[in-house]
Amino acid sequence: MTSTDGDTLVALISGTDQPGIVARISNWIFERGGNIIHADQHRDQEEEIFFQRVEWSHPARDLDDEGRAFEEFARSLGMSGKLAYSRRRPKFALMVSKFNHCFHDQILRWKAGDFHGDITCVISNHRDLEAETERYGLPYYHIPVVAERKREAELRQLEVLREHEVELVVMARYMQVLSGWFLEEVQCPVINIHHSFLPAFAGGRPYHQAHARGVKLIGATAHYATEVLDDGPIIQQDVVRVNHRHGLGDLIRKGRDLEKLALSQAVMWHLENRVLIYGRKTVVFD
Amino acid sequence: MTSTDGDTLVALISGTDQPGIVARISNWIFERGGNIIHADQHRDQEEEIFFQRVEWSHPARDLDDEGRAFEEFARSLGMSGKLAYSRRRPKFALMVSKFNHCFHDQILRWKAGDFHGDITCVISNHRDLEAETERYGLPYYHIPVVAERKREAELRQLEVLREHEVELVVMARYMQVLSGWFLEEVQCPVINIHHSFLPAFAGGRPYHQAHARGVKLIGATAHYATEVLDDGPIIQQDVVRVNHRHGLGDLIRKGRDLEKLALSQAVMWHLENRVLIYGRKTVVFD
Amino acid sequence: MTSTDGDTLVALISGTDQPGIVARISNWIFERGGNIIHADQHRDQEEEIFFQRVEWSHPARDLDDEGRAFEEFARSLGMSGKLAYSRRRPKFALMVSKFNHCFHDQILRWKAGDFHGDITCVISNHRDLEAETERYGLPYYHIPVVAERKREAELRQLEVLREHEVELVVMARYMQVLSGWFLEEVQCPVINIHHSFLPAFAGGRPYHQAHARGVKLIGATAHYATEVLDDGPIIQQDVVRVNHRHGLGDLIRKGRDLEKLALSQAVMWHLENRVLIYGRKTVVFD
Amino acid sequence: MTSTDGDTLVALISGTDQPGIVARISNWIFERGGNIIHADQHRDQEEEIFFQRVEWSHPARDLDDEGRAFEEFARSLGMSGKLAYSRRRPKFALMVSKFNHCFHDQILRWKAGDFHGDITCVISNHRDLEAETERYGLPYYHIPVVAERKREAELRQLEVLREHEVELVVMARYMQVLSGWFLEEVQCPVINIHHSFLPAFAGGRPYHQAHARGVKLIGATAHYATEVLDDGPIIQQDVVRVNHRHGLGDLIRKGRDLEKLALSQAVMWHLENRVLIYGRKTVVFD
Repeated sequence: MTSTDGDTLVALISGTDQPGIVARISNWIFERGGNIIHADQHRDQEEEIFFQRVEWSHPARDLDDEGRAFEEFARSLGMSGKLAYSRRRPKFALMVSKFNHCFHDQILRWKAGDFHGDITCVISNHRDLEAETERYGLPYYHIPVVAERKREAELRQLEVLREHEVELVVMARYMQVLSGWFLEEVQCPVINIHHSFLPAFAGGRPYHQAHARGVKLIGATAHYATEVLDDGPIIQQDVVRVNHRHGLGDLIRKGRDLEKLALSQAVMWHLENRVLIYGRKTVVFD
Repeated sequence: MTSTDGDTLVALISGTDQPGIVARISNWIFERGGNIIHADQHRDQEEEIFFQRVEWSHPARDLDDEGRAFEEFARSLGMSGKLAYSRRRPKFALMVSKFNHCFHDQILRWKAGDFHGDITCVISNHRDLEAETERYGLPYYHIPVVAERKREAELRQLEVLREHEVELVVMARYMQVLSGWFLEEVQCPVINIHHSFLPAFAGGRPYHQAHARGVKLIGATAHYATEVLDDGPIIQQDVVRVNHRHGLGDLIRKGRDLEKLALSQAVMWHLENRVLIYGRKTVVFD
Repeated sequence: MTSTDGDTLVALISGTDQPGIVARISNWIFERGGNIIHADQHRDQEEEIFFQRVEWSHPARDLDDEGRAFEEFARSLGMSGKLAYSRRRPKFALMVSKFNHCFHDQILRWKAGDFHGDITCVISNHRDLEAETERYGLPYYHIPVVAERKREAELRQLEVLREHEVELVVMARYMQVLSGWFLEEVQCPVINIHHSFLPAFAGGRPYHQAHARGVKLIGATAHYATEVLDDGPIIQQDVVRVNHRHGLGDLIRKGRDLEKLALSQAVMWHLENRVLIYGRKTVVFD
Repeated sequence: MTSTDGDTLVALISGTDQPGIVARISNWIFERGGNIIHADQHRDQEEEIFFQRVEWSHPARDLDDEGRAFEEFARSLGMSGKLAYSRRRPKFALMVSKFNHCFHDQILRWKAGDFHGDITCVISNHRDLEAETERYGLPYYHIPVVAERKREAELRQLEVLREHEVELVVMARYMQVLSGWFLEEVQCPVINIHHSFLPAFAGGRPYHQAHARGVKLIGATAHYATEVLDDGPIIQQDVVRVNHRHGLGDLIRKGRDLEKLALSQAVMWHLENRVLIYGRKTVVFD
């Protein structure tokens, strides 16, 4: 995590493991004049899949060329690879409803320089956070979602996201389920925060469920959204202890802190190219 | 939790809340010469139920009389009450199978003086821990459980528990489901440790389930056993962070520490009369 | 913590323990028509000091009378008591310098209704947060502090605090040491957040100290300010795990979350009359 | 941490960073027919030091040759390296006094197969744990330590450690300070558990110190012993929340669990060759 001076390249690579793979990748980098700053790799022993995150400094040259060359090289290994330049900051959008805690948290962390990327717009099915968004100097798109005309709303959302060249969507307590069609069309990852320790209490009103069950810890889960509700690959989870003295209101209040922490950590890791999706799971090179 | 010199009486009381209840209870204690050392109360605002744990020192007098008098007093308030003397140490039994981590942990904590009660025997459906049990100087009852003759085994278990005048049964990774009939007949609480963060991953092989789902925290849950598997009132839960580098074996190893901690804390609290059951939930006066 | 409908009175009482004290207090409440909703008490076994927090609902009557009557009653027991009405919201001030994370966090939690009190002004030795403060609709007092004219600055601070009838001062990463003289004159509690797990790394640049020492957890401590730097009674502490991959910048970033959580929890507890100071320690009735 | 089938070699390497170092190491392994299973590296940006832990499977051949060849190769890079074979289990000794919780915990974890190494003997300045040690089938050396004849005792300790070909000493609450002379002569690492969150409460009676200070979390620290008391490189730290209801006895009891967890984790990591010492700090490749 230590930030480094100057520009670096970060690659995420994964694929069927093969002998000598680490040597081949590090040689490729060395031969082009790069110097590895961090490298972390993992091998799934059951599935025999190889995962690597490698970050290197490089002599001044054309970065687009470098990116293309690396992707070609990854293909030649039968691996899928993704390359990012530390200088380049991807744009992302927030989707919100009425709750404002993750909304403020995301924007304030972005302004504090915590994220390796930039919030470019806020989309909401309500007007509640419009004034606040504008005070932060960000464009706000109010796109109401009516059950029978959901497709229409999603089309409008896609339009906005494309217009802003968004590479990530963050559902900061957006209280609508995104359709499978939308998730396919959006062509970028979508991170959601669910206010429970998944897989416990998936679905609606998880704090009510947790309160009724009498659990002694409540949680929050940041995950990539998939077509199945609250089922996508988990990036980060946090919990906090509760007891009988905590009413439902206390659970909701304490949960807000968990939601902020888990979601912001997940967004941070994603933007630093630390997360590889892998079936229903993630590899997080923290 | 601070231990106090000399003997004390501990009462757990609960029932429909009524005006002046705290005053009436504290007056009763004061009038009989007792001095309250700790008192903790809770009121469920939704259900209007009152819960109290109160601990007091008392002048030397007949404790059985005192106990009877208190129970009568509680009845006169329309409350259910339970009184315990700090000097009296209830006996409890361990039920085990082949895993030995909770078994050793329970016995060593008991020998270290952590429990306000005494282990009196070990019951198992296997012979694996027989020699170890005897080295600890405890009687071991090997009662095999065959599916088609489960009732017979449970009858034998009940016989042993009664013979030892057991007031609590601790399932220290006992890998059999106790029948509803047994739980009714045993007439004392049964505490179980489940190796997941309930209600997530109830049932068999929870670490396998957790590994397959890719959760970022694993947990353990100590709860009172009820007829429905892994569904009883939760006393304590603990979690620990895991990541993609942890294989199934690591989850199992890390989970062992959680199981020991959650189970021993639950047993400690139960034996100190800190736990009140309340529907599917518990109030823990820690 | 469960909030209750309607008004309640909350009393904090402490003093030398005496037989029947709980009965006397609960009788007093009962006789005036109050009904106890929560009560928590503690007895320091070594020092024989009694501490109680009791919250009760009361029939409609003059609350000022009730408060005076209670304080008189406490005095008659030889105890010191403090009474608060749940309806009454104390005013508090933020003191800040340049860091804005605790500043935003305090104000957003206040606006979210988490605090049982109201921020009334912001005082700073710098201009950095002036525009932000005004956007939040709060008055900002820029009072520069020059070493050789510190007394002058403190006099001006006291003037502002009095003008706003402040009952609590929150040092939200205010980077100046308050003089003993100021702390005496201000006549209300001052809560500070120190960015280490006290007593480790008291004084300046605690994250640098922690990084140099190679600790595996970093912390934050919210405490009442006293004349001795970083030495006052601790209200709340939080920690988070770090490792060799975390540079100084990561420690500072991770620490910001700890500071926000520990400080806001301490302020919340203080405003709900849950904290009793007791030598260099606190009793927190959470 | 995922365990792997078959034998592996594990290398820890560190030294001044140089371009192409990762490529050179992975090439060396590849050329000798090895296949990297895990590799984790770190670069200290301030000090420009490179650290790597790499684990690889290798074709059947003479392992001693392989080890010598690797060490030579490391030297040729100007690095210091250490190689271990997963099959080879180093021997280690426990040093204890009267407390038995870490003692039992270490031995039971060893018997459960958690450690990649073997306890070979127990040394104590008291007789308290002699019978227990023998029950576990381990030799016990009672070496009393009298202040004025400490050197004599340490000579005897060294003799025992050498006789058992010990490669690690674990101070499992051994209540004597080892002299700088001893630490030099012993020629193997010594891991100690201190019962506080260092650097807070170094020295004697840390739980008493913590209780007097009124901290809200207590801790335990596993570290390599150095000549300066409680000052060596920290391997692992754990904390647990406490409150005003916890007396000194509760802190001691709760602390026992922290001590067991922190010490066993440190020993586990050390034995798996995951720890590199680095000034007063450690790099732990977990």
